[in-house]
Amino acid sequence: MDETNASLTLYHAWVSSASRRVRFVLEEKEVDYQGIAVDLLAFEQHTPEYLALNPNGWVPTLVHDGVPVIESSVICEYLDEVFPATSLVPTNAHDRARMRVWAKWTDEVVIRAFQVANWNRMMGPIAQQWSDAEVERKLSVIPVPDRREDWRRMAREPFSDADISHAVANILRTLDRMEHDLADGPWLAGKNFSLADIHLSPYIVRIGEHADRGIHLKDYPRCSDWWTRLSARPAFTRARIEPVTFNA
Amino acid sequence: MDETNASLTLYHAWVSSASRRVRFVLEEKEVDYQGIAVDLLAFEQHTPEYLALNPNGWVPTLVHDGVPVIESSVICEYLDEVFPATSLVPTNAHDRARMRVWAKWTDEVVIRAFQVANWNRMMGPIAQQWSDAEVERKLSVIPVPDRREDWRRMAREPFSDADISHAVANILRTLDRMEHDLADGPWLAGKNFSLADIHLSPYIVRIGEHADRGIHLKDYPRCSDWWTRLSARPAFTRARIEPVTFNA
Repeated sequence: MDETNASLTLYHAWVSSASRRVRFVLEEKEVDYQGIAVDLLAFEQHTPEYLALNPNGWVPTLVHDGVPVIESSVICEYLDEVFPATSLVPTNAHDRARMRVWAKWTDEVVIRAFQVANWNRMMGPIAQQWSDAEVERKLSVIPVPDRREDWRRMAREPFSDADISHAVANILRTLDRMEHDLADGPWLAGKNFSLADIHLSPYIVRIGEHADRGIHLKDYPRCSDWWTRLSARPAFTRARIEPVTFNA
Repeated sequence: MDETNASLTLYHAWVSSASRRVRFVLEEKEVDYQGIAVDLLAFEQHTPEYLALNPNGWVPTLVHDGVPVIESSVICEYLDEVFPATSLVPTNAHDRARMRVWAKWTDEVVIRAFQVANWNRMMGPIAQQWSDAEVERKLSVIPVPDRREDWRRMAREPFSDADISHAVANILRTLDRMEHDLADGPWLAGKNFSLADIHLSPYIVRIGEHADRGIHLKDYPRCSDWWTRLSARPAFTRARIEPVTFNA
């Protein structure tokens, strides 16, 4: 580890999709960093120590030269700026805009769709076993109102069939848009592999969990080809963007 | 209008907050452009012609050199890159990250909070008068499932008191975070006026509409001072980021 990177720390979780995006960037760039795993089920992301680094109370957080950087898509652009070798940002302004539209779509539509579609696979069953007092105590330390409401719903008012249909519609629309953009590829933001491809990867790796809902990557030939190329990258393996397994 | 900018067209709406962010950038940079007003109440944003430019079916869309750029926060960064004079992006990577965190917070929390808090002031009462056939016809041309659901709710299942309380909590949290960051200001992303300040401006201009819900800018001294400085900028007036009035 050289001196520059000794000051690079990533607070992350192995199964967190947002953390996976940042690890993928770090591995593509072959930048050394210190990883600190945050135990999400123990709610370590809501401790006062962690909130001092990240007022939203979620992972990941990058700390570089003593200064925290939050939000995975922001961290990815930050890393590309401070470690410009092996650039993951297109050189053309129109392609950069296209890349950022994918970052936004991921953050605003894809994360939510997979969160709702997957709610009953991991966090939901755990949250539903909490007592009322436990629910209240846990919600009280969650700083962002939207996230507090998500946890309340997982614990006491599970997502409805209509919510899940809506999430499925959003996943299908995402695949349609990917298929459209890949026609002008071979990557999502054009000629070169970029952050756009990285942003989508931790969600597409889980697409197989939704076969019973009629979502099949093989129905999208360009997406399938894209996925074969993306998942063959050595950095993908090193970043551990693997299918999520459940002990439940 | 010089030759470079003759090829710059902005599809926008005067009262659209997202459009206002882009107009503010164009006016700060004093870049000439052709503005085309899209009639949102006539649903012009959902016509096939407009969808060919912007598959999401919302404003604004910038067309530069014949290529569309969508999403207001992406357009703002794009404009700063292609018209670098009067830069609105901090030179320091940490401050740039801080600016982008504000772009994200605006897009993911602030827009939604004001949409819910304001729903019954403009679009809601109009949507509720549509017949069932009219609702169905209008929804059928909205391409993004989330937006379709928003319109369905405005027409048939208005936001509840709980939804509105949640929106108010998000607005208050936004003001708390602004007050926090402005301590290390005088602008939201540090020493210089930047896109972060622009992103928040079309929402803060409407904050007075929520006095009856206990939201008062004067309770936040740094935000009040920031607003005085921001709204005195000549570009703010030229961009027409004025209080929204209703004919209803």
